[in-house]
Amino acid sequence: MAGCIDLNCDLGEGYGSWTASEDEALLRVVTSANVACGFHAGDPSIMRAVVRSALGRAVALGAHVSYPDLRGFGRTEMAIAAPRVVDDILYQLGALDGIARAMGGRVRYVKAHGALYHRLADDQHLAASVAEMLAGYEPSLVLLLPPGAPGTIAASASGIRVVTEGFADRRYCPSGRLVPRREPDALLEDPLAAAAQGLRLASEGVMVAQEPASARMEVGSLCVHGDSPGAPARARAVRDALVGAGIEVRPFCPSP
Amino acid sequence: MAGCIDLNCDLGEGYGSWTASEDEALLRVVTSANVACGFHAGDPSIMRAVVRSALGRAVALGAHVSYPDLRGFGRTEMAIAAPRVVDDILYQLGALDGIARAMGGRVRYVKAHGALYHRLADDQHLAASVAEMLAGYEPSLVLLLPPGAPGTIAASASGIRVVTEGFADRRYCPSGRLVPRREPDALLEDPLAAAAQGLRLASEGVMVAQEPASARMEVGSLCVHGDSPGAPARARAVRDALVGAGIEVRPFCPSP
Amino acid sequence: MAGCIDLNCDLGEGYGSWTASEDEALLRVVTSANVACGFHAGDPSIMRAVVRSALGRAVALGAHVSYPDLRGFGRTEMAIAAPRVVDDILYQLGALDGIARAMGGRVRYVKAHGALYHRLADDQHLAASVAEMLAGYEPSLVLLLPPGAPGTIAASASGIRVVTEGFADRRYCPSGRLVPRREPDALLEDPLAAAAQGLRLASEGVMVAQEPASARMEVGSLCVHGDSPGAPARARAVRDALVGAGIEVRPFCPSP
Amino acid sequence: MAGCIDLNCDLGEGYGSWTASEDEALLRVVTSANVACGFHAGDPSIMRAVVRSALGRAVALGAHVSYPDLRGFGRTEMAIAAPRVVDDILYQLGALDGIARAMGGRVRYVKAHGALYHRLADDQHLAASVAEMLAGYEPSLVLLLPPGAPGTIAASASGIRVVTEGFADRRYCPSGRLVPRREPDALLEDPLAAAAQGLRLASEGVMVAQEPASARMEVGSLCVHGDSPGAPARARAVRDALVGAGIEVRPFCPSP
Repeated sequence: MAGCIDLNCDLGEGYGSWTASEDEALLRVVTSANVACGFHAGDPSIMRAVVRSALGRAVALGAHVSYPDLRGFGRTEMAIAAPRVVDDILYQLGALDGIARAMGGRVRYVKAHGALYHRLADDQHLAASVAEMLAGYEPSLVLLLPPGAPGTIAASASGIRVVTEGFADRRYCPSGRLVPRREPDALLEDPLAAAAQGLRLASEGVMVAQEPASARMEVGSLCVHGDSPGAPARARAVRDALVGAGIEVRPFCPSP
Repeated sequence: MAGCIDLNCDLGEGYGSWTASEDEALLRVVTSANVACGFHAGDPSIMRAVVRSALGRAVALGAHVSYPDLRGFGRTEMAIAAPRVVDDILYQLGALDGIARAMGGRVRYVKAHGALYHRLADDQHLAASVAEMLAGYEPSLVLLLPPGAPGTIAASASGIRVVTEGFADRRYCPSGRLVPRREPDALLEDPLAAAAQGLRLASEGVMVAQEPASARMEVGSLCVHGDSPGAPARARAVRDALVGAGIEVRPFCPSP
Repeated sequence: MAGCIDLNCDLGEGYGSWTASEDEALLRVVTSANVACGFHAGDPSIMRAVVRSALGRAVALGAHVSYPDLRGFGRTEMAIAAPRVVDDILYQLGALDGIARAMGGRVRYVKAHGALYHRLADDQHLAASVAEMLAGYEPSLVLLLPPGAPGTIAASASGIRVVTEGFADRRYCPSGRLVPRREPDALLEDPLAAAAQGLRLASEGVMVAQEPASARMEVGSLCVHGDSPGAPARARAVRDALVGAGIEVRPFCPSP
Repeated sequence: MAGCIDLNCDLGEGYGSWTASEDEALLRVVTSANVACGFHAGDPSIMRAVVRSALGRAVALGAHVSYPDLRGFGRTEMAIAAPRVVDDILYQLGALDGIARAMGGRVRYVKAHGALYHRLADDQHLAASVAEMLAGYEPSLVLLLPPGAPGTIAASASGIRVVTEGFADRRYCPSGRLVPRREPDALLEDPLAAAAQGLRLASEGVMVAQEPASARMEVGSLCVHGDSPGAPARARAVRDALVGAGIEVRPFCPSP
């Protein structure tokens, strides 16, 4: 399927004196950095450090926007009205873009985090409102969403470029949904298993190998997780498998 | 002295369901809006509302940046290291500028709030670092500071345009310093007294009328307070006095 | 029905420099104070001020516990897991009780606020867990809940004393549910209308006068709102109507 | 000097999904647990977990109180007025004590954290106000402070029991002050060095071995740090050295 694919990862997920991810090691592997913007993690100094490093490595900067939920790490579903959610996303995007601009860079895409990621995938109205706001902010911005979701379809119709992503190191149900994080086997911890799934997603758009009628999905980006032990090695295995199969790994910004 | 002067006011100083200032009434009078950016007050939805209204009235937008101190309304001195303060200011500036950009506007100046205002006035090193960061973000930005302070002098030498401000409705000591807010007579509550002081500041650069050797200061902007009863009427009185004396009231952005 | 009834009101709903309710005026009227504990409003100094005043007037102290949601004033539904909600309630209860103990008083009841109030009414499992925790903390504590709700029934079965409350100044649907706050006529603003409904609730347990088959509910406490204009006058009208009808107004702690 | 000594350690210093210390391993070694109370770290669920474990091991519970400074981990000096600081401490103490009471325990001491620890040591007026508040809350509470400081002397005169502490694994200057944390050699990382210093402090009250005129200080408690690698092993080495020298290691609550 793909001659090239993007590799994205959540970064900057510490807060104050707490740290979460091995940012530097991951920035040597991925092509797009989902940077926490202070609502679920991240603070201005952490953000600046990630931005500086990402710009130095030509890694694309993404605003990893969230509900205001530091304590719950953005994983708490919150019934915030759609217009306020749009404002919250714009605030976070602007903050990160400001840091990028001060260093000569730009935010190139937006990805929602945690509970907001799922809401954006499910809620067509909200997804369209967010897409419209993003287009007003900067028409070249990309919005990263899961393939086939109602919100993905609605956002795509709103004029902004939508790129869909698959998860290299998260297990999928036969239905095509992710195995929930609370399940013991949600994560593909083995680097080789993650690499195989990543390659399958990138080359065939197939997420569940063992299913005869497995769901297909076209993905323009692969997500690898940064907040679990061994993350850099797993990300590296995914990248090596892609490159070894002749797939170019680069930011999703140029259109296919 | 001045053929024209700017009139600035703190706005958007609510938070969530709490409100603080009569923003709409004040936006009909002032020429520059110091918009709280979420650290001492303000949230993304309040910010958007102020930005929308300000842009509709051609009021210049300023980022009113603060220490992270919602509970203390930004009035608590905090010994945050200078590089972190610079990052915090950039984050707030970017957030507000993002909201402005999404509506076709831009932040045109930065003013520190509360304890950070005083630190920036006193701390040459920090003021120079902030000025340098602002110049990297957008060289046309203005930094609003009190006249004659060490930080003001340091920032002016850093390439960014600095505009000094006087307070129309705060009482000055003979030394030229403001009477501290905790003093009972810190505020000039009488609109006519505020108007007279504002006019004196704008036309003669003299802040303490009754002192024979009163301090002189050149100011390019006059601040009126929005968070006390009768604020819109007082702001209106100041503006009327200026206009009545033939002084043009407009944003400080064009250089004198 | 009742020879005596309690009159409760939300108090201390400011935060830092923001204020919300006319606490002193309301404390002269009510018999129970729902004190915000820092999660939706209230900070330690505001809490201490309300506690001091309430203890001086023999007003019963209640912990008005909430989701951690300052920006949303506790009105945002949040999918926080039940054990964490129980911990959050205990933390807030302990904090207020600590302030009360330092002044020789005690917290005598607990009432949930906003979205958590509705969740506790609807979620039997959570309500039972909260009741069990409260009984472990202090068996004489009262839990304030709406009459007839699943959570109310579950909590009552858990050993803690549950007192049900009606709203004097909120309009009820014929179903017995409250008209949602976002509706224009949710609030009975007229002091006489609130007084009439309060008296009807206290004496007959009938909330909707004009309905032939209106729902009945036995209430041990009447809530009056403190966060709208004219609150003290309305609370006073309710109290006067009750006293005028020979109903004693006092904290609900002595069992009927 | 001492026939017995207390061993205290900071615990529960995570927040939400972030963790900081190896609480379980440390609770098997120390006799007193300084539990973060939500202002610099800790949340209600983390607090409950530490309280449960500490009570199960007969480890004394202390409220580790701080300025409201999650992002700065309580290490930011904040010019909060003394009465507000007293209210903040009471709030945190009450919250932890509430959690302890719900499990049949009690908070037995208070220790300030970070910047507040130093302010309490230096500020006699504040230390006396805090001691007075604590005595009003529970006269049997202990306040943990460094030996010889002005605040320590003032608090001791206020009726509350003050226990002084030395640091087993922090290096001291010849003056008797701690080497600041930002210095590279601030920490005694070697377990044997920490054990030797701990033993010297406990048995002779001498902190700087190599100085002929080294400061003496009587300490009733030894602090070991939990937030650096190897903390449990270092704490264990200190405890073993004490026990090996015939010094009983137990909570400081019984008076010497």
